[in-house]
Amino acid sequence: MTDTIPADVSGLTVPQKASLTSGADFWTTKAVPDAGIPSIMLTDGPHGLRKQTGASDHLGIADSVPATCFPPAVGLGASFDPELAERVGAALGVESAIEDVAVILGPGINIKRSPLCGRNFEYFSEDPIVSGVMGAGLVRGIQSQGVGASLKHFAANNQEFDRMRISSDVDARPLREIYLRGFQRVVEDAQPWTVMCSYNRINGVYASEDPWLLTQVLRDEWGFEGLVVSDWGAVNDRVAGLTAGLDLEMPASGGRTDAQLAATVQDGTLDERALDVAAGRVLDLVRKTQSRPAVAGPLDVDAHHALAREAAARSIVLLRNEGGLLPLRPEQTLAVVGAFAQTPRYQGAGSSLINPTRLDTALDAIRQVAPDAAYAPGFTLDGSGDAAALTADAVAAAAAADVAVVFLGLPATAESEGYDREHIDLPAAQLELLDAVLAANSNAVVVLSNGSVVALPFRDRVPAIVEGWLLGQAGGSATADVLHGAVNPSGKLTETIPLRLSDNPSFGNFPGEFGHVRYGEGILVGYRWYDARGLEVAYPFGHGLSYTTFRYGDAAAIVDGSGDVLVTVPVTNTGAVAGREVVQVYTSLPGSGLERAPRELKAFASVELQPGQTRSVQLRVRRTDLAYWDIRVDRWVVEGGDYTVAVAASSRDIRSTATVAVAGDAMSVPLSMESSVGELMADPVAGPVVQQAMAGLLAGMGGDAAGAMGDEGMQKMMASFPVARLVGFPGVPITREQIEGLIAMSGGAQ
Amino acid sequence: MTDTIPADVSGLTVPQKASLTSGADFWTTKAVPDAGIPSIMLTDGPHGLRKQTGASDHLGIADSVPATCFPPAVGLGASFDPELAERVGAALGVESAIEDVAVILGPGINIKRSPLCGRNFEYFSEDPIVSGVMGAGLVRGIQSQGVGASLKHFAANNQEFDRMRISSDVDARPLREIYLRGFQRVVEDAQPWTVMCSYNRINGVYASEDPWLLTQVLRDEWGFEGLVVSDWGAVNDRVAGLTAGLDLEMPASGGRTDAQLAATVQDGTLDERALDVAAGRVLDLVRKTQSRPAVAGPLDVDAHHALAREAAARSIVLLRNEGGLLPLRPEQTLAVVGAFAQTPRYQGAGSSLINPTRLDTALDAIRQVAPDAAYAPGFTLDGSGDAAALTADAVAAAAAADVAVVFLGLPATAESEGYDREHIDLPAAQLELLDAVLAANSNAVVVLSNGSVVALPFRDRVPAIVEGWLLGQAGGSATADVLHGAVNPSGKLTETIPLRLSDNPSFGNFPGEFGHVRYGEGILVGYRWYDARGLEVAYPFGHGLSYTTFRYGDAAAIVDGSGDVLVTVPVTNTGAVAGREVVQVYTSLPGSGLERAPRELKAFASVELQPGQTRSVQLRVRRTDLAYWDIRVDRWVVEGGDYTVAVAASSRDIRSTATVAVAGDAMSVPLSMESSVGELMADPVAGPVVQQAMAGLLAGMGGDAAGAMGDEGMQKMMASFPVARLVGFPGVPITREQIEGLIAMSGGAQ
Repeated sequence: MTDTIPADVSGLTVPQKASLTSGADFWTTKAVPDAGIPSIMLTDGPHGLRKQTGASDHLGIADSVPATCFPPAVGLGASFDPELAERVGAALGVESAIEDVAVILGPGINIKRSPLCGRNFEYFSEDPIVSGVMGAGLVRGIQSQGVGASLKHFAANNQEFDRMRISSDVDARPLREIYLRGFQRVVEDAQPWTVMCSYNRINGVYASEDPWLLTQVLRDEWGFEGLVVSDWGAVNDRVAGLTAGLDLEMPASGGRTDAQLAATVQDGTLDERALDVAAGRVLDLVRKTQSRPAVAGPLDVDAHHALAREAAARSIVLLRNEGGLLPLRPEQTLAVVGAFAQTPRYQGAGSSLINPTRLDTALDAIRQVAPDAAYAPGFTLDGSGDAAALTADAVAAAAAADVAVVFLGLPATAESEGYDREHIDLPAAQLELLDAVLAANSNAVVVLSNGSVVALPFRDRVPAIVEGWLLGQAGGSATADVLHGAVNPSGKLTETIPLRLSDNPSFGNFPGEFGHVRYGEGILVGYRWYDARGLEVAYPFGHGLSYTTFRYGDAAAIVDGSGDVLVTVPVTNTGAVAGREVVQVYTSLPGSGLERAPRELKAFASVELQPGQTRSVQLRVRRTDLAYWDIRVDRWVVEGGDYTVAVAASSRDIRSTATVAVAGDAMSVPLSMESSVGELMADPVAGPVVQQAMAGLLAGMGGDAAGAMGDEGMQKMMASFPVARLVGFPGVPITREQIEGLIAMSGGAQ
Repeated sequence: MTDTIPADVSGLTVPQKASLTSGADFWTTKAVPDAGIPSIMLTDGPHGLRKQTGASDHLGIADSVPATCFPPAVGLGASFDPELAERVGAALGVESAIEDVAVILGPGINIKRSPLCGRNFEYFSEDPIVSGVMGAGLVRGIQSQGVGASLKHFAANNQEFDRMRISSDVDARPLREIYLRGFQRVVEDAQPWTVMCSYNRINGVYASEDPWLLTQVLRDEWGFEGLVVSDWGAVNDRVAGLTAGLDLEMPASGGRTDAQLAATVQDGTLDERALDVAAGRVLDLVRKTQSRPAVAGPLDVDAHHALAREAAARSIVLLRNEGGLLPLRPEQTLAVVGAFAQTPRYQGAGSSLINPTRLDTALDAIRQVAPDAAYAPGFTLDGSGDAAALTADAVAAAAAADVAVVFLGLPATAESEGYDREHIDLPAAQLELLDAVLAANSNAVVVLSNGSVVALPFRDRVPAIVEGWLLGQAGGSATADVLHGAVNPSGKLTETIPLRLSDNPSFGNFPGEFGHVRYGEGILVGYRWYDARGLEVAYPFGHGLSYTTFRYGDAAAIVDGSGDVLVTVPVTNTGAVAGREVVQVYTSLPGSGLERAPRELKAFASVELQPGQTRSVQLRVRRTDLAYWDIRVDRWVVEGGDYTVAVAASSRDIRSTATVAVAGDAMSVPLSMESSVGELMADPVAGPVVQQAMAGLLAGMGGDAAGAMGDEGMQKMMASFPVARLVGFPGVPITREQIEGLIAMSGGAQ
């Protein structure tokens, strides 16, 4: 089929080119049969394929064909393992290919700014390196099968409230260092075939029509070579969007915007070359996707289910395990409590909702190992039933067992695309049930099902807590694998679990009002905030326990020829069972001249170790990841200095540190009359003259001029004067012209 | 002299007019002898007169004539008593008049955004109502003597770091509701003769050349009738400043900017009428100040010192008094410890530094009541001396006495104009001394001297803490008055004392970098933040103890004919001594559609009560103070609803609440194609049609369309769609043209 596709759009009419730049219906692009251009299909994902059956409905959310439901990003991210993500991605690619889907709409890698964001379950982390590394893994996997990924939602789309209009008002440093950094990494490392622009505005400009975002940053700076597609319904002004770099509008506009484009080309408002570029990119995408080798179905459901189970087990985070209550031992009698054990909550609502090929329940899986395990639902998912009787049954079961395994979680309606949560609490009925169970049997394990963080007020009263997030269709068996020890848990938190919502950095600035949300916390997102403010948390970013223990040796760090920092640390499995450890590297720069978080994750590795085994773990901190965004020169700059490299088991469990000297990037901010006296004093050329003049000025004021502020204080105050202002003061012993001369001589270095 | 001053500037040449708009030297305006226009003097303040002796120096900070040093704003504010401020202001006016000073440069009413701001001692509060009410009192007092006040620093000048260039990047709501509200109140209530523009930029524009700030807001909205003077050296571009509304540049520019103005008038770049306006305002100010009746000197030093002592005693806040340790009893033997007892720290450094007419020390004043009180300095102010010996002496004295009175405080260099603090800790040597004294005698009173908040890590180990702030020249005797009970303390905190700096709302966003500081905490400044986030504090805003106790009866609140809320509450002195209580009124609006602080101070009253006496205290909450700034319509709007009116002894000690229904302001945001489905549904005209269409849409998608998100979730998601986007979706059963018709019919109401 590829053979028939033209090399470029030069042979197409303007209406034909315009027609290529918007959808035919909800899920497909328009064919141009006369030109041999076929239609291709793009469908939702990204933790499974959501290809709608039959005709698409108005919103594209009705039933879809069965597909393997892998763990959503909230789960998969906890593996901290891009290779696992790549394998899942490859499986997604295979399923897409079997269904003749050209592009699967994911991964979503937006930052979890607030635990309230309704779509957090679709995102990886509060940290951009985790988001970028995991997202790149998924993209690589998907595209390895000749299927396109769609990196979304680009950008600064961190909430659902008023998502189609809200302006994310965010300063340059947080925008670059937190919200765009992950996107940059995926684009540069994995070159996704498409990027999906988000609904929202950024600093007042719709992402769908922002030339700075879609062209300057994405293409000119990062080298993106693919196509930009709108989120479904994100187009505000189609002509402005096309000019800005939005190539493909989805879904169909009923021909309205195609006609607009054609008309504006006709009347000269829109340069035809801009249309050529967009249509050409659609053509390129069609060609790429049509080059895919044919894949024979049917889907190997068993193999993909097994991968989903492996990935789910790797997604589980063991938050707490006092007294080694887990893994459960064969001789222990069990009471399984909580409706989620029988009716799993395994994915979130909205466009990512997968119709699974099968569905494991934790109860069945537990009973395969412990056939006599009792079960009591304790509550119903719809709140119906006799709460007292349900509780009494659960309490009786718990009292009669050695261990109570209590499944708690958020209701399905709590987390969805389209709206945000208003609190982070588990339902009161579940907390009451837990209290009743604990009163009967304190030997309890809580297993959580939730796509975004919940408060854990019971955490000190329950010996073991398993954070199961949303685990996809094999989550039930994966949970049993971890509970019984068939799999040793190794997931780590990609987001902080705070003590309470009001500790969150975005609190008071979320979800905004009147079309604006201020990202007031700046770069202090997630653990960066909790660490900077010294706030206690329930469980810190990067935390996760194992059934074994790991000893970290002394870390070493050097700068290699590329400028990257290579970190080496020996890690030993000091326990009795095999296990995986996610080794984390955080950097800091003591004495930095910048506002910075106390530490920032810059690299991580997931390492498997047999009992007693030691491995020397090597991690690479990219020099580019040490850079901050400098608003004075509008580019990335590495600040030079002695960086602290902390090798850690979590953001608050630092095992070994090393110091490494990193050379700074050459930086020059030209001196001007707006420069401060202090800045001139620091200049090699202007400095001596200005210092002398200042000394003369102070001497001329008499010995006690500084008065109560002291000489040091006086010098600080003087140093902050812009030179233009100071020379205007009566009697200052240096003239404007002299300063101008010094500035000219300095050649701009500062 | 007034007689010779021309009625307007029509008879002046362009150079003469230009010459009027900048200073002759550091402190005076230029005379135009040919036109009979004299020079006038403006000098620093504002808690005393700082008229320099002899010729002014380059920075205008050398010795000044003796003047009464009243408590700086940090102290006076704690009285919560605008009548006291007015009396102090009148005394300042008298002293200015005696010295033939036309304008005294104050009050400063900037908001204490961070405890680190070096100039906080010159400001009143973290709350705009306190700042505005106290500032208006001071202005009324000063101007009652025919002397001009200068309301400063206008505006959003909340730090010293890079103060001459930094841009305070602040959103409209916090700018209006927090940072400008106090200025608005002073202008509207007290019409200061001059307003001083600040050094900094606001959202990128220099205050000294911001037409929005200096003309639109200040004059057009608030009705300011006076003159705008630059802070000394604040002029960046003189022509831009004049056009924006900056009338008078200070200090002298050496004729450079006068020539600029004249040249730009000549070449037509600057409209001569703009120069006429500015020069005319200078002329008006000269005329007003020259109308002042002659005041005969010399200054009544004793009377003003007595007022300074009264004001100082009213400024003291009794933070803690376990077991009624204070007031000290005549029979108790005393050990006075701490160098500040003998060498008081009573004002801050920089342009407000007063040369006092006399200076009381606490040690002398205490010994007037308790002649046998022992004294040991414990530490030296310059850190010299043998610390061990100093401590040993202090410990010995404390051990031998019934009560140790320990004077601690910040060094003079810690707080100054021109630079900010970097931490909020007392010097370590003082804290160590205190520990040693407490070990010897736990019956200790700590008396603090500090112009801005300090951490109080010892607060639970010391039975009594007296926050003495900076109290002016009579602070020593006023402190003794309070310690011995001659004055019953009645000051309350105008700023929260946090547990630690990192709890502060501006932490991480202070003092900014690269020329920008983001006011990321938005409206949640001071107690608004601590309350919203539920943070524990050392002592809350509004807190302050008395030697007596007060009982609050039931509060009542009604809306009067003007729309203001009148609050009435009976307050009874239930103790044994006369006392004053600062009664505070906070409002909230449960269920508000806006981001709001949990409670906001809206009115207060200082009430004196004899033992057993009850007074019905009436407080007026202005309707205008209930308004929020609505960015959709760019004006103040009162949200209607049932407001909670809390009558309180502090922001966290609410004694009685009432509910009052307040009618909202009429508000209309026109519907458009950018309006959301939800907004259309709420419209009386468009609503029914859109609701029907939505129902049809959902029905058309099949019964289970909502899936996991549930019907309610689906409706939330749908409601957030801008109608323009929804009608573009394939198959939606309502057309763009129908929606446009509905919007036209709705007439814009929403």
